[in-house]
Amino acid sequence: MDKQNISIVCFSGEFDKMLAAYTIATGAAATNREVTMFFTFWGLNALKKDRGRKAIGKDFLSRVFNFLMGGRNNLPLSRLNFGGASPKLMGGMMKKNNVAQLDELMEAASELGIRHYACEMSMHILGVTKDDLIDDVKEVVGVATFLNESEGAHIIFI
Amino acid sequence: MDKQNISIVCFSGEFDKMLAAYTIATGAAATNREVTMFFTFWGLNALKKDRGRKAIGKDFLSRVFNFLMGGRNNLPLSRLNFGGASPKLMGGMMKKNNVAQLDELMEAASELGIRHYACEMSMHILGVTKDDLIDDVKEVVGVATFLNESEGAHIIFI
Amino acid sequence: MDKQNISIVCFSGEFDKMLAAYTIATGAAATNREVTMFFTFWGLNALKKDRGRKAIGKDFLSRVFNFLMGGRNNLPLSRLNFGGASPKLMGGMMKKNNVAQLDELMEAASELGIRHYACEMSMHILGVTKDDLIDDVKEVVGVATFLNESEGAHIIFI
Repeated sequence: MDKQNISIVCFSGEFDKMLAAYTIATGAAATNREVTMFFTFWGLNALKKDRGRKAIGKDFLSRVFNFLMGGRNNLPLSRLNFGGASPKLMGGMMKKNNVAQLDELMEAASELGIRHYACEMSMHILGVTKDDLIDDVKEVVGVATFLNESEGAHIIFI
Repeated sequence: MDKQNISIVCFSGEFDKMLAAYTIATGAAATNREVTMFFTFWGLNALKKDRGRKAIGKDFLSRVFNFLMGGRNNLPLSRLNFGGASPKLMGGMMKKNNVAQLDELMEAASELGIRHYACEMSMHILGVTKDDLIDDVKEVVGVATFLNESEGAHIIFI
Repeated sequence: MDKQNISIVCFSGEFDKMLAAYTIATGAAATNREVTMFFTFWGLNALKKDRGRKAIGKDFLSRVFNFLMGGRNNLPLSRLNFGGASPKLMGGMMKKNNVAQLDELMEAASELGIRHYACEMSMHILGVTKDDLIDDVKEVVGVATFLNESEGAHIIFI
């Protein structure tokens, strides 16, 4: 019998939640499940080509917001972030305990053929364009596509 | 074939998460899916008749909590809230980019016939009564009703 | 017809979110649904034998993190936490309104035979061992087991 597909909405984009999302995603893909990841709002930050702080956008406010949110290197911990020190410390703890890092998980996701979609509406709001995002992003889609792709799948909102 | 129903639990009640919830909800309803929204805990704030800060409740603590949580105008951003300035700035960014505002999405949800349920237990805890909530709230229900209504549907906890 | 199983991922481990998780879990089990709870990351704190702050772990960083996160008595409110005062105040509001406390819900979950699994990877990262967790934790598992147990169930990520 076919296993149920997995459809993950990456909304919060925090370091620990992205780890959870990619751990579920790669684990599911490695056990022959179809996996789709939808990145919206803060989740988009993890997909920015520029991993540091960059003022993306055309107008002043998007530029300020994108600079403050930053890229993959600036993802905060959802608690006890200590100004960004914790994700780095936790990265060290993961390395020491031989747990896959976020970068490795994202690479694995790419190799396992996990589909990455970016949310059109939140890109509009935040002034982020497809060119600002890594090549793993297959397409920029709306909620209708998300729902169609998720038909019959588990939806996991993270 | 019938499309899968959507059952959204609005727990966190932050500005950005309510936007996500209503975007999924209205998108799903507009594409012929049955949608039910369950409001619990912080999510109830978005449904208060009074959109500002009001000391709802009978005892001192509920009154303090409800005043601090406020109503729809006081929903914070889940990150970078800056004392409530960000939701207002983001509302401006949405308007500029012709993205539907939260109020418009909520109106659309109402017109699309999306069922709004409020969680009995969290209303008890917070001292909020049905009279404090907008008329879109069809019923105050418990977890058993929520689960029955969600049978076979996607449950999305936001 | 058999009701759909419920599979809850307890990731955030905040006081209010654990309340929501256990309310759904016990409500589902009481209405003849199979319920499984997976505890990962911050969610593990609710399952620590030691309910207060204890420096669990072998190395310095895990000990600091575990001390800061604390146990069941230290779960913060996801908003308006006020240095930990709010969960205690809210506990009082729940008692006054005859709403089941977290401890009571966890006891009920145990009596209803709800399966508790702890996430192997996050235990590795945080230096928490099975001995540090309450006896309700049936097994320490990885993502593959989680996905297999969740086949056909509602996955609720909290």
